[in-house]
Amino acid sequence: MINDTAGVTAARGFLAAGVAAGISKPGKLDVALVVNQGPEFAAAAVFTSNRFAAAPVEWSRRVVAAGTLRAVVLNSGGANACTGEQGVADAARMAALAAAPLGCAPDGVAVASTGLIGECLPMDRVAAGITAATAALSPEGGSDAAAAIMTTDTVSKQAAYVSESGWSVGGMAKGAGMLAPALATMLVVITTDAVLTPAEADTALRAATRVSFDRADSDGCMSTNDTVVLLANGASGVTPGAEFQAGLDAVCVSLARQLIADAEGAEHAITVTVASAATEADALEVARSIARSNLFKCAIAGNDPNWGRVLASMGTTTAAFDPHAVDVSFNKVAVFRAGAPGTPRGEVDLTPFEVLVEVALHAGDATAAIWTNDLTHGYVSENADYSS
Amino acid sequence: MINDTAGVTAARGFLAAGVAAGISKPGKLDVALVVNQGPEFAAAAVFTSNRFAAAPVEWSRRVVAAGTLRAVVLNSGGANACTGEQGVADAARMAALAAAPLGCAPDGVAVASTGLIGECLPMDRVAAGITAATAALSPEGGSDAAAAIMTTDTVSKQAAYVSESGWSVGGMAKGAGMLAPALATMLVVITTDAVLTPAEADTALRAATRVSFDRADSDGCMSTNDTVVLLANGASGVTPGAEFQAGLDAVCVSLARQLIADAEGAEHAITVTVASAATEADALEVARSIARSNLFKCAIAGNDPNWGRVLASMGTTTAAFDPHAVDVSFNKVAVFRAGAPGTPRGEVDLTPFEVLVEVALHAGDATAAIWTNDLTHGYVSENADYSS
Repeated sequence: MINDTAGVTAARGFLAAGVAAGISKPGKLDVALVVNQGPEFAAAAVFTSNRFAAAPVEWSRRVVAAGTLRAVVLNSGGANACTGEQGVADAARMAALAAAPLGCAPDGVAVASTGLIGECLPMDRVAAGITAATAALSPEGGSDAAAAIMTTDTVSKQAAYVSESGWSVGGMAKGAGMLAPALATMLVVITTDAVLTPAEADTALRAATRVSFDRADSDGCMSTNDTVVLLANGASGVTPGAEFQAGLDAVCVSLARQLIADAEGAEHAITVTVASAATEADALEVARSIARSNLFKCAIAGNDPNWGRVLASMGTTTAAFDPHAVDVSFNKVAVFRAGAPGTPRGEVDLTPFEVLVEVALHAGDATAAIWTNDLTHGYVSENADYSS
Repeated sequence: MINDTAGVTAARGFLAAGVAAGISKPGKLDVALVVNQGPEFAAAAVFTSNRFAAAPVEWSRRVVAAGTLRAVVLNSGGANACTGEQGVADAARMAALAAAPLGCAPDGVAVASTGLIGECLPMDRVAAGITAATAALSPEGGSDAAAAIMTTDTVSKQAAYVSESGWSVGGMAKGAGMLAPALATMLVVITTDAVLTPAEADTALRAATRVSFDRADSDGCMSTNDTVVLLANGASGVTPGAEFQAGLDAVCVSLARQLIADAEGAEHAITVTVASAATEADALEVARSIARSNLFKCAIAGNDPNWGRVLASMGTTTAAFDPHAVDVSFNKVAVFRAGAPGTPRGEVDLTPFEVLVEVALHAGDATAAIWTNDLTHGYVSENADYSS
């Protein structure tokens, strides 16, 4: 169902481009543009809840409130965050530069930036990049756009869902670091040719985010720039039913899991599933507490099924459970059963990339999972040895 | 004022010993015993709030409730946590073995263990170790006891305060890993020959813990075994005044900072001070959010004054402040002033071991600090490459 080689130009009526403007490393694609050709221009977005929201987040939050967007312009190589009044002016100028050739007002363009916090953008290069991206716009430009928003990502992330009813949803994402509690991804753009009102787009996007990006938690850090934008142009002529939420969810889950699998330094992609919880909130609290334990994440890096660190994390939560009743398994081996040691840890094989940690609380019927990754020398190297 | 070469036998009337019993690595001291010779036996303790409290924590929490203790027996090489009914029996047996030669009931002895979670103790070796420690008890045994509770610690931690009024406070601590949110230290024993009632000991210990161990946060993880015990025997004959709280605080702060300086892999000891907060709780929330950011902690490891990561962490808090008004400095260089970039980050020198990050919120008069350390390759190695 999900095709991960097609992205923001999978749906009809969207053009995209990615160009190298010299903002990031020489030759790296670093300016992306996604343009909606209509006929409709419905849009919705969710943003970081960080109080130090970047200038482009403040801009985009304001312009998307009207419910329509013509385009999204994005850059890597600089976050334009904590940059004061100059940053605010630069974000507005990026929107104006992208809007002019489209014949729309600057308010029709959302802006997203990623890179180092606290440095102003080199606006001459950004401006030249936006001009070049406008000239390069194409229905085949999705992959270049996905490449242009990469920072420490090692691969680009795309996903598309094609409905038999005639509409599609496609998206791109970046964000190998600073994946966040309340919103995991730094930058995501999703497009669809389904017919949606702005209100429908907003409702669907928030529902999809709740079960996808909000459940990816790489390192517990929250970005100043997290942005997820959905553009809907109705070019398919089809008003979708309930399948639309399923398709949008599938695209968002695919992108979220691609982000975790490529998180900084990740040597294991870990799914922490908490079952038989009293409530979904309890399941999420327990799963997130485990996913945020540096000790647990280091153990997985070392292929060590250290279930004591899972219990130590669970023990800090307020979720309903009896410590003497819980079970824990690693890759289906029940290492802790009913509050006591189970199968010897030596029987667990953690060499595969995918790791499944399952917890049963025996307190109810709710289940939820958090996706995370291990804490490795690679993570420390990427974040200690380079400013980012 | 603080002497860090004297520990639990600095005050009159306390004996201690540390012996090698083969529980941990061959030849390493791994059983410690601290005995109060009276005349009084007042005692108080605080413990982990982890719901998976270890068997020795459950034992000690119960016996200290009576307000008196004759001794504390401790071991490294095994946490006796999540070990089921066998673990409960083993903790009780450790107390009984230590109590018999003292002629007291098992309830007069607190027990503390540290090491791998989920493995039962080799009780034959533990028993032989307690017998050997009893035979080795001495007024000069404090340093051996401090060495016997070390796990991944690279140095032992001791501190003593000698009052001119004739009483002393001395203590030992271990805990290079799993330093915790609600209680930082795995194992701490403090002795004093001041005259204190059990209620006075309890009040003083809780007040001291709040401004010392609770403010050390190495990796945000909370142990199943954290224990801080205070024994007071009145052997000085002096009932102390307000100076006692100051002396106890000083010993606890010294031990807490020694723990952070020797935290697993630490290449920098970091003090995060938040000033001009509306409340102390706000200051602590902001300081702790910074101290728990893996991205910030990696940046310090790399000598990178990445103030964007400080702001990104602050932005996730609910503390009262205007993002456009805050200041941030690294080692006294004001890199962010009134919500905008300040002195260039290149002027900050992070090569010294001690790092001071100062934040001003301009929202009130409260100040608080959290002590933490950087996140290094050494931390990953210690926690990925060995079970602990």
